[in-house]
Amino acid sequence: MQLMLVFELLSTNGKSRRGRLTLPHGIVETPCFMPIATKGAVKTLSSADVEALGASIVLSNTYHLLLRPGLEGMEKLGGLHHLMGWNKPIITDSGGYQVFSLSKMNKTTEEGVTFQSHIDGKRIHLTPEVSMRMQAAIGSDIVMQFDDVAAGDSTRERYEQAMELSLRWARRCKDALPPGQNLFGIVQGGTHEDLRQKSVEGLVDIGFDGYAIGGLSVGEKREDAYRIAEFICDKMPADKPRYFMGGGMPEEIVHYVSLGVDMFDCVIPTRNARHGTLFTWAQDPTTIDFSKRPTDFYKKLNVTGEASAFDESPVDAWCDCSTCKTVSRAYLRHLFSVGEMLAMRLATIHNLRFYLRLMEELRKKKDA
Amino acid sequence: MQLMLVFELLSTNGKSRRGRLTLPHGIVETPCFMPIATKGAVKTLSSADVEALGASIVLSNTYHLLLRPGLEGMEKLGGLHHLMGWNKPIITDSGGYQVFSLSKMNKTTEEGVTFQSHIDGKRIHLTPEVSMRMQAAIGSDIVMQFDDVAAGDSTRERYEQAMELSLRWARRCKDALPPGQNLFGIVQGGTHEDLRQKSVEGLVDIGFDGYAIGGLSVGEKREDAYRIAEFICDKMPADKPRYFMGGGMPEEIVHYVSLGVDMFDCVIPTRNARHGTLFTWAQDPTTIDFSKRPTDFYKKLNVTGEASAFDESPVDAWCDCSTCKTVSRAYLRHLFSVGEMLAMRLATIHNLRFYLRLMEELRKKKDA
Repeated sequence: MQLMLVFELLSTNGKSRRGRLTLPHGIVETPCFMPIATKGAVKTLSSADVEALGASIVLSNTYHLLLRPGLEGMEKLGGLHHLMGWNKPIITDSGGYQVFSLSKMNKTTEEGVTFQSHIDGKRIHLTPEVSMRMQAAIGSDIVMQFDDVAAGDSTRERYEQAMELSLRWARRCKDALPPGQNLFGIVQGGTHEDLRQKSVEGLVDIGFDGYAIGGLSVGEKREDAYRIAEFICDKMPADKPRYFMGGGMPEEIVHYVSLGVDMFDCVIPTRNARHGTLFTWAQDPTTIDFSKRPTDFYKKLNVTGEASAFDESPVDAWCDCSTCKTVSRAYLRHLFSVGEMLAMRLATIHNLRFYLRLMEELRKKKDA
Repeated sequence: MQLMLVFELLSTNGKSRRGRLTLPHGIVETPCFMPIATKGAVKTLSSADVEALGASIVLSNTYHLLLRPGLEGMEKLGGLHHLMGWNKPIITDSGGYQVFSLSKMNKTTEEGVTFQSHIDGKRIHLTPEVSMRMQAAIGSDIVMQFDDVAAGDSTRERYEQAMELSLRWARRCKDALPPGQNLFGIVQGGTHEDLRQKSVEGLVDIGFDGYAIGGLSVGEKREDAYRIAEFICDKMPADKPRYFMGGGMPEEIVHYVSLGVDMFDCVIPTRNARHGTLFTWAQDPTTIDFSKRPTDFYKKLNVTGEASAFDESPVDAWCDCSTCKTVSRAYLRHLFSVGEMLAMRLATIHNLRFYLRLMEELRKKKDA
């Protein structure tokens, strides 16, 4: 447990980076995509399934695990790695985002947030210290600071207030985290450059093991997100990993990688899969020139549509996942049409493999 | 396609039988359990998963497949083996049972049954000839005759009428089935020995590739089911496979095997799994003396209960399934408590393996 986090920058190409992150539970080659195991499982998949897809780290949610099994429950269970049987790195978000998006009647003070569980209405008090204790119980390789998340359409005043409070909470998180875990700070400030600058400088002053871009992919215009992400990346320390939270579509990931982002998580591949929307390569992925920031390298397939009813081809001829190797679009469409859970699983396997393969191809280009 | 069905009786022990069924898509060692792939998938499992569990034949439902993808759809799809990517034998029930249990406003005449789809209310006319055509489109290795199923609490008159109509339909099924498929007749007649006798004799007169016991496991007393099953088995031809439809609990299967039944299907392992009820061995299954018709060789575990919350042991220490090899009761309980679909899948894998293992052990005893 001495070696907590080592980030090696293997190569750069313009602003984009090829790196290697060594964490207590293993190595993560970057840029990387982190499948979301919200409640301790990537929906429909076992830990062995996720590993077989090529994932080297998963993201889990402090908020959901705080509700069930709870703090004492997680401590007694010996942590999430043990519970899931997942022996690779785990990153956890702090709960800040979910408190605002999922819970009812939340009330924020300097101390923290009081909210009602969206499960049973129970009153829960979440503070930077509680979040750190919960993420310690989970045993996360990377702990995210607890932050105050302003809604996507907030006023400048609200963004500033949330950013300032998040900075003070960042300090408290650093003070509260027990030794042996890595902590990332989260840059806030909406689409306001000056607020983002103050946020990133404040975080770097405190000093973290990595830095995240928060508060984007929440409904702002894509060009605003690109502008702000580039503004932030340019000010982030080069020797620490950079994590874009909660985004995005494949072409967005390609763009953010070109700006120097190293880590991504997103519900898009898994949530889309469960609704029958699949990502497919428009061409052999080994032949794509990602340096040109292409946007047309994939197609979305709605496999529930009539067009797939008698289509014997696999979801994606370029894909090496077990779904593409074993089932036809026609079968997948039949399974969706009759409501079989297997449909969601097969689609999840494919979409996650698409995203993980995208990262593999992005890394290969940088290795070359 | 010349070799349609060969049933070899390898050995007998009292009334119980150890056999081998050779079908167009492969060999089925008997006594066997046939997992239920109602709509073209064993719920939560891929065809590869089902094969890995050791299943050599699955049962699918004519009724459900007639609704979706429909007769023309299935013909265009090239059959169920092709659609599912399942290359081993498939048996299909005729739709008779589902018409009565699932559909609304069904009306029976000499010709057949008219009913409303439970999906969209569409009016569908199902006759012996339509059932045969649908099962031909499916490409079933074993086709079940279309039968008139009397409810479990019917009068003797109703049982007699349903049995007589089923006999006339059995003849029409035999006449309608295209060459190249195997057809089983279904013995009806409730718990009335004389009706059952008339049914089995009538079916044997027509001549089928195998014979099934229908209309049991529908709410009658267990001793009545045992009595009727023994009565029927004693009158069935020894050189044809015998199939007990829709049953049952593990100790019932042990009992029916001791009476000379060769084939079983049942929703119990899969449906129970999805509700968190798991079958576990009470002792090393290789040491059970099934000749004594034991009833205490397994225990039911409700893994959703508090007792499993911090239980690090596998579901079943005697089990060789991937669930027992990779996850704890605590994790499975957590997954059920947070509503993850993965819970149902992991539980289904275990329960099906329990049933398939039970048959393996029953066959081993007869091999010895």
